[in-house]
Amino acid sequence: MLDKKHIKFFQNLLGEDNAYFDQAHLMAYSYDATRKRHLPDGVLFPGDESDVSKILKYCNENKLAIVPRGAGSGFTGGALAHEGGLVLAFEKHMNKILEIDMQNMVAVVQPGCINMDLQRVVEEQGLFYPPDPASQDYSTIGGNVSENAGGMRAAKYGITKDYVMALRAVLPNGEVIRAGKRTIKDVAGYNIAGILIASEGTLAVITEITLKLIAKPKFTKTAMGIFPSVQTAMNAVYKSMAAGVTPVAMEFLDALCINAVEEKFSKGLPKEAGALLITDVDGDIEAGLEQDLATIERVFKENGAGEFKIAKDASERNDIWFARRNCSQAINIYGTLKLNEDITVPRSRLPELLKRIAEVSVKYGVKVPCFGHTGDGNVHTNVMVADKNDPSQVKNGHQAIEEIFKITVELGGTLSGEHGIGISKAEFMPLAFSDAEMALFREIKRAFDPNNILNPGKMGL
Amino acid sequence: MLDKKHIKFFQNLLGEDNAYFDQAHLMAYSYDATRKRHLPDGVLFPGDESDVSKILKYCNENKLAIVPRGAGSGFTGGALAHEGGLVLAFEKHMNKILEIDMQNMVAVVQPGCINMDLQRVVEEQGLFYPPDPASQDYSTIGGNVSENAGGMRAAKYGITKDYVMALRAVLPNGEVIRAGKRTIKDVAGYNIAGILIASEGTLAVITEITLKLIAKPKFTKTAMGIFPSVQTAMNAVYKSMAAGVTPVAMEFLDALCINAVEEKFSKGLPKEAGALLITDVDGDIEAGLEQDLATIERVFKENGAGEFKIAKDASERNDIWFARRNCSQAINIYGTLKLNEDITVPRSRLPELLKRIAEVSVKYGVKVPCFGHTGDGNVHTNVMVADKNDPSQVKNGHQAIEEIFKITVELGGTLSGEHGIGISKAEFMPLAFSDAEMALFREIKRAFDPNNILNPGKMGL
Repeated sequence: MLDKKHIKFFQNLLGEDNAYFDQAHLMAYSYDATRKRHLPDGVLFPGDESDVSKILKYCNENKLAIVPRGAGSGFTGGALAHEGGLVLAFEKHMNKILEIDMQNMVAVVQPGCINMDLQRVVEEQGLFYPPDPASQDYSTIGGNVSENAGGMRAAKYGITKDYVMALRAVLPNGEVIRAGKRTIKDVAGYNIAGILIASEGTLAVITEITLKLIAKPKFTKTAMGIFPSVQTAMNAVYKSMAAGVTPVAMEFLDALCINAVEEKFSKGLPKEAGALLITDVDGDIEAGLEQDLATIERVFKENGAGEFKIAKDASERNDIWFARRNCSQAINIYGTLKLNEDITVPRSRLPELLKRIAEVSVKYGVKVPCFGHTGDGNVHTNVMVADKNDPSQVKNGHQAIEEIFKITVELGGTLSGEHGIGISKAEFMPLAFSDAEMALFREIKRAFDPNNILNPGKMGL
Repeated sequence: MLDKKHIKFFQNLLGEDNAYFDQAHLMAYSYDATRKRHLPDGVLFPGDESDVSKILKYCNENKLAIVPRGAGSGFTGGALAHEGGLVLAFEKHMNKILEIDMQNMVAVVQPGCINMDLQRVVEEQGLFYPPDPASQDYSTIGGNVSENAGGMRAAKYGITKDYVMALRAVLPNGEVIRAGKRTIKDVAGYNIAGILIASEGTLAVITEITLKLIAKPKFTKTAMGIFPSVQTAMNAVYKSMAAGVTPVAMEFLDALCINAVEEKFSKGLPKEAGALLITDVDGDIEAGLEQDLATIERVFKENGAGEFKIAKDASERNDIWFARRNCSQAINIYGTLKLNEDITVPRSRLPELLKRIAEVSVKYGVKVPCFGHTGDGNVHTNVMVADKNDPSQVKNGHQAIEEIFKITVELGGTLSGEHGIGISKAEFMPLAFSDAEMALFREIKRAFDPNNILNPGKMGL
């Protein structure tokens, strides 16, 4: 429970409508996409950067924990006050697009701006903001930056970090800093923007984000290949790209996913298939897209694809993408508890990764449907526990996850391609990082946040 | 002078052929492209990462300064031992390409690997490493990463940081750390690679670099536009790009540059022209290049270009690029001392920047020929002091530089687009950064290097 004098301070600063301490509001800000629940001690809605500065200064002096929060759509608990503290929520006031600068092809937004709102506004002007996490309809740019969100288009267009040109942020001591510039080149001073990205709200509170925009590609085409096995599909992924094609996306579904989608939605997918690859290519010259699709078709067929289909129109595009988009939901038929991870390996290691995940699945008696962004080596690995009320099944599931993490690291991969570490993966950090690396992380945390008030206990620090 | 026991330690560790303390060798490692000279106390040539680790651990315990050095081609003194210390030189042993991974389109190199050696090897295999600083024939990848080098192709392909996927580095305490992965996505832990890039050798010593490669574009075309004034040319730059074209390069020469090149080389350039823009476009589809050039021609002409010429073949390409490539040398006709800076502003501010530089030139009675990478807002600004032996002229030159820095910051730009801060621009850091920002830089420096042994006194820290 928060001391009354603290409550009074925040209510005076923000007004009672922007500083809540009642049970109903605390409940409403106690969850995220992990479905874990942790009641915060209060919920604050800053109106502007100056509010953020005053809040942080006060919290720093009084050693009160702060948990910055966008939409609460994260998968690893980054926005959860799992050790108590005050949620700093940006959705209410600091959610605006401040500027679209057409001349320099740059957007300036507040952290609570919703990703899709930005995409829509810039596309109306012929520009393009590529990062498209699956949560794009509700997740915020501040959250995207803090977790370094990826998405479907990363294979060609990269991820959030590739679009952040500059940030404004508030340090725990209340000082406002600027990092980066509205320029492609800027090498003066340390790359503070670079380290704030993906720092999960543990170093500073981001108050303004300047993003690079690009020209919107004129044409997009979609194709699908059906493969006899996961192995053949994984070979086709990296060989297509090594053949010189850079698809926007090259997405994958394994046999379990295909069957789940078919069982739930009856879309006429081939239930006997071993794997499905869905790919988008884009560009300004139609001949270029055709050339890319021809290369992909050749490589797919050389690697065993029995069928290759190019969507003729928007309706066929939607049909092809339906399976991928509804996959995550469909695989719930395999269990009542889903342990979903977003491991990533170098593309050429995908065949081995998938082979070894299949072995883990057998060993622990759990189904592990896999799908995801194979064009960038990112596989959504879902350990499905048939009965979440059976402790031995749950234990097996967790052991399977741990083994999959070990395999991933062994193959030169990372624990997280998109979702971050938060609290969910904190215990696995020592699998991926040495003592020296963890010690360095702690030193950096201390350099920004000596009193450890920002998202304490996250990232295994 | 270094204590004898230290000399003995390094000679024992590396062998006498890899640890020099004699005057001739100290002289040979006392300079860089700034033409300043500072004798180091010794020059060490580590054979591998383990040597680097032992050297750093020893230096950390004995508080000896270390100055990492690639080719010594930097423009800001990053590789100079201006406070004494040991130069750690990578050119002799740690200069290899360790791996070209065609499947994942990745190269792994040691820090002393020369940029152009890497470009050549990967291009033979149909791949492409875009960052091409003007020093590419001799500068090293380690130096490029430490300064976050740019180049001609940044407008389309970005800069060094956009290609660094992973690093190995040694901390001052001798611990080896890995940062990043051979994957597009990796969000586990703080982005250590991100902050080591452009840190000018002040945080850790980089021992291995993993770089993203892309497919080599099949076609390149070059064009040139001649403009009546700098203003019209600068308008044409940002309007071309806002029209949806992403040229590889859009390079600029002002009237002083054009006249200097013409005076020295008589290439038939129009001496009455106000400015020249040279642009390259590339891609895999020739029709795409033609479409891009048509757009550029239209925008150039709408903005006052009297002449627009597309190179018909390689020889014409070379002719067009000759002026740009020889510009830096040619402008020496304007003075015996060149104060060259690499300021960068958002593209749309280029017209105002150039207008105000012209005013500064008049005010201080110095010629300021400007050329450079306007496609990314980066202008090489050369304050030419006619007689370097005249103290009042030199003083005027320095005042002009300071005023140009102030204008740059006012226009939302940066002190350095490519060259870094080093010792040359250290005094100007407070123009660009607040006290809070400088304090944060110092805290970060301390987190990595508590004894301040790595490149002490650089970057104004």
